[in-house]
Amino acid sequence: MYEIPRWARDDIIRAGRRMDSRGWVPATAGNISVRLDSATIAITRSGGHKGFLTEESVIAVDLDGAALTQDARPSAETLLHCQIYRRFPDTRAVLHGHSVAGTVLSLDERAPQIIIQGYEVQKIFAGQTTHELALSLPLIANDQDMTRLANMVGPRLSEAPMGYLIRGHGTYVWADDMDMALARLEGIEFLLACALERRRK
Amino acid sequence: MYEIPRWARDDIIRAGRRMDSRGWVPATAGNISVRLDSATIAITRSGGHKGFLTEESVIAVDLDGAALTQDARPSAETLLHCQIYRRFPDTRAVLHGHSVAGTVLSLDERAPQIIIQGYEVQKIFAGQTTHELALSLPLIANDQDMTRLANMVGPRLSEAPMGYLIRGHGTYVWADDMDMALARLEGIEFLLACALERRRK
Amino acid sequence: MYEIPRWARDDIIRAGRRMDSRGWVPATAGNISVRLDSATIAITRSGGHKGFLTEESVIAVDLDGAALTQDARPSAETLLHCQIYRRFPDTRAVLHGHSVAGTVLSLDERAPQIIIQGYEVQKIFAGQTTHELALSLPLIANDQDMTRLANMVGPRLSEAPMGYLIRGHGTYVWADDMDMALARLEGIEFLLACALERRRK
Amino acid sequence: MYEIPRWARDDIIRAGRRMDSRGWVPATAGNISVRLDSATIAITRSGGHKGFLTEESVIAVDLDGAALTQDARPSAETLLHCQIYRRFPDTRAVLHGHSVAGTVLSLDERAPQIIIQGYEVQKIFAGQTTHELALSLPLIANDQDMTRLANMVGPRLSEAPMGYLIRGHGTYVWADDMDMALARLEGIEFLLACALERRRK
Repeated sequence: MYEIPRWARDDIIRAGRRMDSRGWVPATAGNISVRLDSATIAITRSGGHKGFLTEESVIAVDLDGAALTQDARPSAETLLHCQIYRRFPDTRAVLHGHSVAGTVLSLDERAPQIIIQGYEVQKIFAGQTTHELALSLPLIANDQDMTRLANMVGPRLSEAPMGYLIRGHGTYVWADDMDMALARLEGIEFLLACALERRRK
Repeated sequence: MYEIPRWARDDIIRAGRRMDSRGWVPATAGNISVRLDSATIAITRSGGHKGFLTEESVIAVDLDGAALTQDARPSAETLLHCQIYRRFPDTRAVLHGHSVAGTVLSLDERAPQIIIQGYEVQKIFAGQTTHELALSLPLIANDQDMTRLANMVGPRLSEAPMGYLIRGHGTYVWADDMDMALARLEGIEFLLACALERRRK
Repeated sequence: MYEIPRWARDDIIRAGRRMDSRGWVPATAGNISVRLDSATIAITRSGGHKGFLTEESVIAVDLDGAALTQDARPSAETLLHCQIYRRFPDTRAVLHGHSVAGTVLSLDERAPQIIIQGYEVQKIFAGQTTHELALSLPLIANDQDMTRLANMVGPRLSEAPMGYLIRGHGTYVWADDMDMALARLEGIEFLLACALERRRK
Repeated sequence: MYEIPRWARDDIIRAGRRMDSRGWVPATAGNISVRLDSATIAITRSGGHKGFLTEESVIAVDLDGAALTQDARPSAETLLHCQIYRRFPDTRAVLHGHSVAGTVLSLDERAPQIIIQGYEVQKIFAGQTTHELALSLPLIANDQDMTRLANMVGPRLSEAPMGYLIRGHGTYVWADDMDMALARLEGIEFLLACALERRRK
């Protein structure tokens, strides 16, 4: 079976604690992964609270989502992680979390995306150098069928500089390392919290 | 007198700290219990802050709410815990907490329940496999007479897949172990926070 | 000079940390005291952040507010603490904190008090046994002249089962020991957060 | 190369952790500095999360913003720190953070400043002795060109008793030591949170 390196488990456990401290992994929601090599990722096991992960909570899967760890049951959403790693070869960390702001905005916004413009924090996203451009966060309809959901997500990954948001569900964010993935998730959640406040007026 | 096992005290103390970190046990509110055997539970003593429990804060009671620990004064709400353990033989942990979102919604909603639909987090509740179904969280009028309150709760336990919410008071949640009870409480509070935000529009 | 016992310093330092963790002592706001004997209290020194108190941050004063610790400058608001200890001989702890909810409500509410009714958490206050009665939290106009402010507060202490709230400023709460004072402050702030949410509709 | 004293690194690392605990340095936002002598400051390096600073995250620059630490890339906003230290010789600490309340208010308020009046917390700012006076927090249009931005800020520093706020971006606050700078930042953020709540009515 695949031996998961210590740094990978540590990065995932640490990310889970951080996301929990912000309230972004309620109940057993969310999942977290890192790339181990061109064909393999380490990802959180299905179920269990992501704020209290242990070494046993992390399993290895290939890029089709098949488990490389004995007795491991990958979460159904593993496929969405694999889709991102296949599409972006430089991506080394993927985070999926739920927030109150993201959940509410994604259910109440009828447009196919949320437009973010005028915020300094936008500059955390790859290639962004100014607050002046409009950034799009795609909104995807939720679906319990992961293949169907992945098919909805696929065509929109090219217009997703921040990541994407599944309606009533949560955010997917990725980056070249875990620190940047956590920073981007925090950036998106800050921007969504601002957007929610501004809709209230 | 009944000897309470270490794991039971630890589970209860840990749950209290977690609930306090989220602001769900304000003042001396809330109470926490685990099943010890078919006829006995361990539960927090009346009074005292649930975020700072010690070994002495946990007492044993039978399923009629009578104390099995010397000099122990069970809280009046112990009866509501007993009712849940009698009704659901597999239940091993019960949590009762107060939140701002739950308190406000329960006072302002005139319908006899809050309907939750369209949220991925719904899947934390027993038997739920999709965000598409409507889940009902029963609202019960508050009453200082616990027998009368238990009589109001009883008939509604069969329509309470998430737990129930006493108006102006707080949430009761249960599960087969403490980790799942904490996850479900967090799930309900996340959903109530979303519902409150969406009512503001 | 007066020797302040260790328990008094510890109670005050611990209360400051707790209040800071909730955001109730912003900037250098707030002050905290305990009764040492019938004629003396220990109280936080003027200035400095209440979340990071040290042994040196706590001074002794008599019930007229005169310092009993060398080189000690009591805060001007010490007089409001003394007023409470003189009026209520059983009071052993007084807390003064600022919250966003309390500040906003106290500035926007034109009535001379905030009425709290229908909340289970009301039962934390002395003599309250039900959620059904209306409790009054007096609102006092802010004044930089402490003698004038104390004269405004005095006549209203008899109608202040929860404590009182100075407009645009903060809450004063007291109890027979520090744990109960902290529980009551948390109870008031929970109730004010609920009241603020409900005004938004 | 310039040797940065231990206290300077410690003050900056501690300030970053505190700001992160409040959510004021989302993603890689914010920067933090202290004065080392009349011509030199220590400041956070460009990039990286300000809640997890290490000794290597702190560099020395002169008051024109030129690096005195080998291989150091100062953040572009270093110039705004230098501008404050040059203008106010007694200033020894400068903080720049982002908050949801400040971001939202700064984008939605059309006036050239936010007026703060009637709050006790105003007294944290230099020279303020009462809640009764109106304090002005200048709002500056955001600009990615730091020289142009500094030219906009310069003339308004004389009317900035609290600091200033760049629209869609964040707050600049300063004081004679780090503890007071942190207290003032907390004071501003408390006041902005109150102002945002009150606009909702």
